[in-house]
Amino acid sequence: MTDIREQDVVIAGWGHSRFGKLTEETLESLVVDVGRGALESAGLEPRDVDAVFLGHFNSGMWPLGFASSLALQLSPDLFGVPATRVENACASGSAALHQGITAILAGTAERVLVIGAEKMTHAPAEVVGAGLLGADYESAGRHSVTGFAGLFARVALAYEERYGPVGDVLGSIAAKSHRNAMKNPYAHLHKEFDEEFCRSVSERNPMVAAPLRRTDCSPVSDGAAAVVLSRGALATATVDPVRIASFAQANDFLPQDSRDPVAFAAAELAWQRALTSAGAALDDLDFVELHDCFTIAELVMYEVIGLAEPGKGRLALEEGLVGPDGRLPINVSGGLKSKGHPVGATGVSQHVLAAMQLSGVAGAMQLSGARRGAVHNMGGLAVANHVTVLEATV
Amino acid sequence: MTDIREQDVVIAGWGHSRFGKLTEETLESLVVDVGRGALESAGLEPRDVDAVFLGHFNSGMWPLGFASSLALQLSPDLFGVPATRVENACASGSAALHQGITAILAGTAERVLVIGAEKMTHAPAEVVGAGLLGADYESAGRHSVTGFAGLFARVALAYEERYGPVGDVLGSIAAKSHRNAMKNPYAHLHKEFDEEFCRSVSERNPMVAAPLRRTDCSPVSDGAAAVVLSRGALATATVDPVRIASFAQANDFLPQDSRDPVAFAAAELAWQRALTSAGAALDDLDFVELHDCFTIAELVMYEVIGLAEPGKGRLALEEGLVGPDGRLPINVSGGLKSKGHPVGATGVSQHVLAAMQLSGVAGAMQLSGARRGAVHNMGGLAVANHVTVLEATV
Repeated sequence: MTDIREQDVVIAGWGHSRFGKLTEETLESLVVDVGRGALESAGLEPRDVDAVFLGHFNSGMWPLGFASSLALQLSPDLFGVPATRVENACASGSAALHQGITAILAGTAERVLVIGAEKMTHAPAEVVGAGLLGADYESAGRHSVTGFAGLFARVALAYEERYGPVGDVLGSIAAKSHRNAMKNPYAHLHKEFDEEFCRSVSERNPMVAAPLRRTDCSPVSDGAAAVVLSRGALATATVDPVRIASFAQANDFLPQDSRDPVAFAAAELAWQRALTSAGAALDDLDFVELHDCFTIAELVMYEVIGLAEPGKGRLALEEGLVGPDGRLPINVSGGLKSKGHPVGATGVSQHVLAAMQLSGVAGAMQLSGARRGAVHNMGGLAVANHVTVLEATV
Repeated sequence: MTDIREQDVVIAGWGHSRFGKLTEETLESLVVDVGRGALESAGLEPRDVDAVFLGHFNSGMWPLGFASSLALQLSPDLFGVPATRVENACASGSAALHQGITAILAGTAERVLVIGAEKMTHAPAEVVGAGLLGADYESAGRHSVTGFAGLFARVALAYEERYGPVGDVLGSIAAKSHRNAMKNPYAHLHKEFDEEFCRSVSERNPMVAAPLRRTDCSPVSDGAAAVVLSRGALATATVDPVRIASFAQANDFLPQDSRDPVAFAAAELAWQRALTSAGAALDDLDFVELHDCFTIAELVMYEVIGLAEPGKGRLALEEGLVGPDGRLPINVSGGLKSKGHPVGATGVSQHVLAAMQLSGVAGAMQLSGARRGAVHNMGGLAVANHVTVLEATV
């Protein structure tokens, strides 16, 4: 098997749109804009691109069901470039990025443009709801009042049944996320909701699917992000390269009754594979961007990555480990929860935010001395799990 | 860049469902059945699989929008195996297969299960029509009476304007296809329509979108196909391994006005790349399975692959080059036209049929002395083009 540590695959440039309700944008304009931004950042011309991978969920939210070649709209010089869409629900962005890494390892490409994109806010709520439920084996094609939130609410209820109430800690996670997002210029939500607000059900913070309140849920967003992956650093790049130290994927079974709802077993497997492959322990990481589509997912992930024992995830927060000044800052970007969650874009966005940290250009979000970080991105209820470990090179 | 000729990636086993109106099947049952068949054919256990790639278009035809992990339903031993869906419209199957090859070249997997699947016939005609139109940049989300046939009818009309009438030769291509499919046990259509029937508009063969009659169009089908890709031959396999001599992809721009409708420029580029990479000329091929979603596509492809000069594609047929006894038999399987076209399955199916020829187990379809063949699979109107050259090893 290939030892990625002997390889030199780097993120050589990136682009990122604002996330939010982008009424002037289309799927195409988002794809083209972030693609162009990534090429400029890497100092490349379109003709330098060997392959394009697009992470995009769609699931009925956008009429074009064959979006891989949208990136070619960037330039006439892209004629003939292989372009492929990769889909793993909410992990589509990381799935595309991992295919891009694989293409470089395979030697079929030297420079790969990876784009993640989703346009959602134009669609009626019922179309978005049905689209997202399309990622769930049991709910796909069925009507649901609570949508995907209802599925994660069941995780929260199972967690509560096993370990006790979580309403307060979920509120604290939400408040941390909102606070972090204030410093992220790309974030959808720039609202500093405090612990008290996030812990309380109110007219402005209604229950969506008990025990999940509105502040426990990531918003429906439009957005896109892109990276240029390269074999080795590019002399042309305007940013310091960030090395892919490892990447790993693990899928779980789709039926709910085949999974322990609070274990995220395949997420743990992907995490272990990635850290082992990178030769890193949890203590070697300076930050993590993880998949907090709902606050309960972030709580469970504290346990999955080993920050806390099962059922003790709240301690990671209460002991201050996961804040921007903590031992292992989690979702300094604001996470999906406050940055927004344009499905196909999310995984690529997580990698861009990590790369910004590791190249020292994260602005107000910058952590001092960040040398190594990890990204976790999941599709469905911990069904498709992608983990990447990234390292500073300069 | 990797020289695939120095590698030893083989198709080590395969599975193939019947194509047609399979009312008892679901997307899941199709995926599981062909996956199991491919593993049995390769003599592998589920635990031997390092990665799964699923080629699947969907585009609203099936409620589950996150199908990559369906293959895990095959066995509890598949927990944790990376599974990823790849989509390039009607070339989704080959796109998945090419990602599988790439994973082996990258050293991230040794044995890959690639499955292509589509369930279509359960859906109302308007859902299928809209789903397929989702693969076209201009038509996606819009109503059309003639559907995707209308798009290829425009190719035929452009061809006629440039080179003269094609109704007769398209009828002959259809008749060849129907004749070939009589020998293919997997084929959707087992009806020996002769030249006269296929060349005539009648109550049983109405005009769908002039000049394309019903017999010029591939049917809406359910079906699935799978291959096991392996680094090197497997001692366990029940079939002779078939080597991947090369694989190539080229994408074109989505907007129609950026493409010459009768040139299939990116198809030609993918074809040339694949043959160059394999070190092969057209004369070195013993057969081709090419993407004849409509008979006009097969006619244009005769010219793209160099069997005839532009505008002279009919000669390839009239001179007997492309029949089962000709110099370069084309679509001995019956092609998409008569075998059926369950979108995501098609590309994988083409590779299975080619592998059957090259390992000498094609039954009534068997060509004598077939040592090397090529597959061409396209998404949209020659937008995403995948070509593979395959070689016998025994």
